[in-house]
Amino acid sequence: MRIGIVGGTGKEGSGLGIRWALAGHEVLIGSRDPERARGKAAELAARAPGARVSGMSNLDAVTAAEIVVLTVPANGLAATLPDVREACRGKIVVSTVVPLTFGGGRLFTPPPQGSSAEEAQEILGPEARVVASFHHIAAHELAAGDHPIECDLLLCGADADGKKLVADLGKSMGLRPVDVGPLSNAGPVEGITALLATINRRYKLKNSGIQITGLP
Amino acid sequence: MRIGIVGGTGKEGSGLGIRWALAGHEVLIGSRDPERARGKAAELAARAPGARVSGMSNLDAVTAAEIVVLTVPANGLAATLPDVREACRGKIVVSTVVPLTFGGGRLFTPPPQGSSAEEAQEILGPEARVVASFHHIAAHELAAGDHPIECDLLLCGADADGKKLVADLGKSMGLRPVDVGPLSNAGPVEGITALLATINRRYKLKNSGIQITGLP
Repeated sequence: MRIGIVGGTGKEGSGLGIRWALAGHEVLIGSRDPERARGKAAELAARAPGARVSGMSNLDAVTAAEIVVLTVPANGLAATLPDVREACRGKIVVSTVVPLTFGGGRLFTPPPQGSSAEEAQEILGPEARVVASFHHIAAHELAAGDHPIECDLLLCGADADGKKLVADLGKSMGLRPVDVGPLSNAGPVEGITALLATINRRYKLKNSGIQITGLP
Repeated sequence: MRIGIVGGTGKEGSGLGIRWALAGHEVLIGSRDPERARGKAAELAARAPGARVSGMSNLDAVTAAEIVVLTVPANGLAATLPDVREACRGKIVVSTVVPLTFGGGRLFTPPPQGSSAEEAQEILGPEARVVASFHHIAAHELAAGDHPIECDLLLCGADADGKKLVADLGKSMGLRPVDVGPLSNAGPVEGITALLATINRRYKLKNSGIQITGLP
């Protein structure tokens, strides 16, 4: 798969990028600043010899991608997405975005749409096939590409084919996918990240995760 | 512990009641209808010989209890809690309430306060020591009192002593407690129940649960 990562120079985006590159996918690191994207791509390529990683603007990454992954901060969606809206039409768009506000008050602060994924869907319009996923895979774990990640991959969205593809992307990095229904469940999915962030701080961890029990 | 369960005749309340009775706690089943509470208590007592279970009005249960557990439907909080507000002063009040709306639309429908637990705190006032917990332990599992429950006990709240006591209540039924911070994290905790309900329906299960990974 050719995967375009919007905001791919951040920790989560580049962590996903290196894992997918190692799994044999082609990774396009997108950024507002194409120069920065090229620098990050070179850094990732050095860590994954033979991998196909390149850097470019967010719009170029989305345009060239078969599947789009959003890893921008929640408060960056409104500024970033209008530019790529046309290029997202008909494509699967994976929202990994989590609406967290650090600084001592309420940590989980979803937008009025209920979740960042639904905000993205609203901005991108109904022709973008938004799937919410990859919120719980710690950037720290992604960066350490050398051991399995002990966390399930929850995913939700309206598009069954899109979910199957996202599930395959997860399996390609060793994750077990769990389908948690429609995009209106994205708020609860994103909220789990607030709990994991709290657990990490409270128990002095970097890599807490979740697993669903009772599945066959 | 003497545990008063508000709305204890429902599936979740009576499931918790039987587990706690089997663990040696004294259980007071509360209901709007004291007659119904007595009937449910007799039913539970028959299944747990030697256990201390009795039925009474919600107010009597709260008044006599050392620890109060709310298992009413989310839309029943506003009607039920004002009557027991005074009796809850200074007590630990465990909210197990989940703001779910079944019927095909959005499943997770938290109140404006952010969570049912925060709504309960607002109605009961600052002297009630609200802890949110026990949302994910399937009623089906609770009722089958004969095998261990494969699910972590997430809990959050402002009161450290209250959380320790609730953690002990969980341990007494074999659950591993995980402290997920302040009551402002109750929304994400309650939201997980929407995901488990969706998973149960989608995968044809009755008892999905969650576990936190990465803990020591």
